[in-house]
Amino acid sequence: MIIIGIDPGYGILGYGVLEKNRNKISHVAHGVITTEKDISMSKRLQIIYEEFVKLLESYSPDACAIESLFFYKNVKTAIHVGEARGVILLATSQRNLPLYEFTPYQVKNNITGYGRSDKKQVQKMVKMLLRLDKIPRPDDAADALAVAWCLAVELRL
Amino acid sequence: MIIIGIDPGYGILGYGVLEKNRNKISHVAHGVITTEKDISMSKRLQIIYEEFVKLLESYSPDACAIESLFFYKNVKTAIHVGEARGVILLATSQRNLPLYEFTPYQVKNNITGYGRSDKKQVQKMVKMLLRLDKIPRPDDAADALAVAWCLAVELRL
Repeated sequence: MIIIGIDPGYGILGYGVLEKNRNKISHVAHGVITTEKDISMSKRLQIIYEEFVKLLESYSPDACAIESLFFYKNVKTAIHVGEARGVILLATSQRNLPLYEFTPYQVKNNITGYGRSDKKQVQKMVKMLLRLDKIPRPDDAADALAVAWCLAVELRL
Repeated sequence: MIIIGIDPGYGILGYGVLEKNRNKISHVAHGVITTEKDISMSKRLQIIYEEFVKLLESYSPDACAIESLFFYKNVKTAIHVGEARGVILLATSQRNLPLYEFTPYQVKNNITGYGRSDKKQVQKMVKMLLRLDKIPRPDDAADALAVAWCLAVELRL
């Protein structure tokens, strides 16, 4: 089965695609959807929605995992990340794609065995677990692979 | 021209439709889109999106006004209201519908001449300005009419 992981954001949204075959989890793809500051928020959301729909069409995932973060520096950022999450959730629902949410604590705990490990540790483990040559870039894509990994492991149990 | 106003929310989302003919502003419709707590957030967002698209098809508005609130009791609520805003903004962008945002302060100031007036005062003024028999119910619909009124007045200037 194919799993797509999402690290939500409106300037940069990370995605990571994994394949789970029996108990083996392999890397398929990762990357980011970016939108420019100088266009309207509604147009940025439309770009995120359309690019995400293209990813769903390209990789035909069987499930989607998304990071749920309920702590933000300010409410304005939280609202805007919520807006980006909204169009992602809509696209999954329109395709009846099962959606799973993981907190940053769950992601860290799943990947490194410790819920408070730092970003760098998580990224190193993602590289190792997925047998990659180097740490996936940018951070948002590495985080998205980590979220996808969580779901792959959960579904394995 | 037809203006649709939105008071965003995920449990209850208020809408109000006004017609502006030269300098006369008249009431067309108001109501709410509601979603049940016991269904998934992604399904709730899909319902909000589809119901909003139906409103756009029914009333063919020329512009959309939405209340932008950057103060919430907790970040979780802010994220979820952001998610609902996201699917509304997406629908407007997909139709190239011009979108205008107003803060609660701007709405109150526009309707009552005072940015800190209470909800009841705003609702009484909405009833009076739109020559309605009674205060529109529920509150979310009355608030949505108030936001639509703001845009109607701004576009008149």
